[in-house]
Amino acid sequence: MTETWLGGAANAADHPFGVATLPYGVVVVAGEPQPAVRIGESALLLRPATGALLPEHAGLFAGPDLGTFLAAGPDSWLDVRASVTSWLTDEAYREQLEPMLVPLAGLPTVLPFSVADYVDFYASENHARNVGQMLRPDSDSLLPNWKHLPVGYHGRAGTVVVSGTDVRRPRGQRKAGDGVEFGPSQRLDIEAEVGFVVGPGSPQGRPVPIADFTRHVFGVVLLNDWSARDIQAWEYVPLGPFLGKSFATSISAWITPLAALEAARVPAVPRDPAPLPYLDDTGDSWNLDLSIEVRLNGELISRPPFATMYWTAAQMLAHLTVNGASLRPGDLYGSGTVSGPERDQRGSLLELSWGASQPFELADGSQRSFLADGDEVVMTATAPGPDGVRIGIAEVRGRITPALSD
Amino acid sequence: MTETWLGGAANAADHPFGVATLPYGVVVVAGEPQPAVRIGESALLLRPATGALLPEHAGLFAGPDLGTFLAAGPDSWLDVRASVTSWLTDEAYREQLEPMLVPLAGLPTVLPFSVADYVDFYASENHARNVGQMLRPDSDSLLPNWKHLPVGYHGRAGTVVVSGTDVRRPRGQRKAGDGVEFGPSQRLDIEAEVGFVVGPGSPQGRPVPIADFTRHVFGVVLLNDWSARDIQAWEYVPLGPFLGKSFATSISAWITPLAALEAARVPAVPRDPAPLPYLDDTGDSWNLDLSIEVRLNGELISRPPFATMYWTAAQMLAHLTVNGASLRPGDLYGSGTVSGPERDQRGSLLELSWGASQPFELADGSQRSFLADGDEVVMTATAPGPDGVRIGIAEVRGRITPALSD
Repeated sequence: MTETWLGGAANAADHPFGVATLPYGVVVVAGEPQPAVRIGESALLLRPATGALLPEHAGLFAGPDLGTFLAAGPDSWLDVRASVTSWLTDEAYREQLEPMLVPLAGLPTVLPFSVADYVDFYASENHARNVGQMLRPDSDSLLPNWKHLPVGYHGRAGTVVVSGTDVRRPRGQRKAGDGVEFGPSQRLDIEAEVGFVVGPGSPQGRPVPIADFTRHVFGVVLLNDWSARDIQAWEYVPLGPFLGKSFATSISAWITPLAALEAARVPAVPRDPAPLPYLDDTGDSWNLDLSIEVRLNGELISRPPFATMYWTAAQMLAHLTVNGASLRPGDLYGSGTVSGPERDQRGSLLELSWGASQPFELADGSQRSFLADGDEVVMTATAPGPDGVRIGIAEVRGRITPALSD
Repeated sequence: MTETWLGGAANAADHPFGVATLPYGVVVVAGEPQPAVRIGESALLLRPATGALLPEHAGLFAGPDLGTFLAAGPDSWLDVRASVTSWLTDEAYREQLEPMLVPLAGLPTVLPFSVADYVDFYASENHARNVGQMLRPDSDSLLPNWKHLPVGYHGRAGTVVVSGTDVRRPRGQRKAGDGVEFGPSQRLDIEAEVGFVVGPGSPQGRPVPIADFTRHVFGVVLLNDWSARDIQAWEYVPLGPFLGKSFATSISAWITPLAALEAARVPAVPRDPAPLPYLDDTGDSWNLDLSIEVRLNGELISRPPFATMYWTAAQMLAHLTVNGASLRPGDLYGSGTVSGPERDQRGSLLELSWGASQPFELADGSQRSFLADGDEVVMTATAPGPDGVRIGIAEVRGRITPALSD
């Protein structure tokens, strides 16, 4: 395993943010947002580091977030990653870089990029079947289109928040008998997802073929698609989820580049029927073997395996653009809830409690079907890296605060 | 009627862009985008004009679009409008301002603001009933939630384009027998809508009450929500429209401020059942009496009356934020297709041709159910203004170009 001169945690073989990971985020130092790379339990500030050591790319980190870097594309991404790797592993850079390293403890992070458009997919067959069985127990659990296209919809980009942001319980309408009632959501849920961050845009009218995935997608985050099931169930016909989702979506503070996940590629699950040519990935069909863990108030409640997703991230991108929709730097798309085939691999409380019919007990003796005020949800993930190390995907954390009162 | 020293068209009583209208847009002069106000058939460049005559507000127009001005809020909007009105009507300003007036003919316009989030509603009862009757002939044409909340969903902000932009026919999946097929949309449609442009944002977690509508919404545009009905019909279950809409949405190049539409307020239609308190507008219940005209290749095909909408723009905004979703400057929301009770008041070809069962004939002898390549659609609107003048809402224009071939 490659070691860094930082020593300590960053060199531990089981540390998810060693030199093989190197995710990008934005930290706030002396009130100023600054692009940074995470190494171990520190952040390397990229503005001074590239200014001193990689001046031809320093402009990529001059802004308040990662937008310019994301838009720069794969050649720049690889240049910067190679440079940062050499800086952190070559003792010769130690003296120069040590002043640019800031301990993460207590360091504020902000949203690492301005979200352009946010799309959410529904790409886990286990999740879609679970939801289908609950909603339509007497018919096929999958709807007719599900195996022909990655079903998706647009969400609210302006309410995507960074890990650590509190989430206020939303209020809204729900069905009550023959009428409606209004109040705090009584079925507030999580969805454990993986989010994909787009860098270079594409022109309107030109689809992005499946083979161009790595030219456009920079990396991954964990994504918690908070969902108010009672609001959603009442509003969603016929135009889909709206206020049941749009109050908040949380993402990791650090984006793990795809370049760190090459050893995590695994064959995609077989697809039957064969998809249309624009979704056909034969010859380059792979998924990412991300092992997600979901904790509620510190207690592990689920281990969703991302490798079980039916549709891959490259297929989602090809579908998203096949009608000619353009991409912009900062576009974000979520995989949809990741649920494995086992009960303890389900990525939502809706599924874990089977629609509240099977509440589960926490270590403190309390029962849950949906979220209580004060509950904190943390999602983490790891993936196989080079030389047997584990690559970490930065956590996404959020705590529920009580609804507004009138 | 107030006259301007420009004379000519701008003073004609029937000109929709006289001094009582004064919409805002962005024109491109010598390659540079510049905020401007439209007067008659000219654009007044706001950067030099405010620089010389209203320096305390010149910063609002320093950027490449109207974003800063939109974010500044109602006091600034009124200050600028009052100043521009006095400049254009007082002969004393003529010599100074004439060099800042540019003829509109041949002047390029660009998107007047960067669209933050785009939401589309479904607020016309006539439209919802028409669609319901076509899709569900044997049951109630309105779904159970429709009269309890303004149904809406998020669209793609990145593919909102300015009037005059060509629209490429999208390709995509559609159902074919027991399977699917892929190709250019065969049911490409329009939706005549009114769009509302948000200025000042609001914090996450804090609903915007119905009474705060005019603190946040600056003005209106016409909006053509291009729709590929065959793609939409296959994809939309259960998460709503996605690729059937996301390829392009066209809006006017000029935003008409609400301040120009005070004489256009008419009582909102009665609502039964009474909506929940957060949607209750009793005491301040008004809609805008906009008379829309839709032309296909120059021929008038529909006159949708906006005053017939069931839900008002203020109710839509209150609903959009009731769950705590924040607003950002540049948020845009559409009313949904405007359809009146009469056949010639329907705002989509789907309704005008009753799902292609009743194609209509154009003056050139051709028949239409949906759009043909080369078709040009223009929507315009007027509204009552002060002293008997008509206020214009700038046109939204778009022409269909052929789908990509492989």
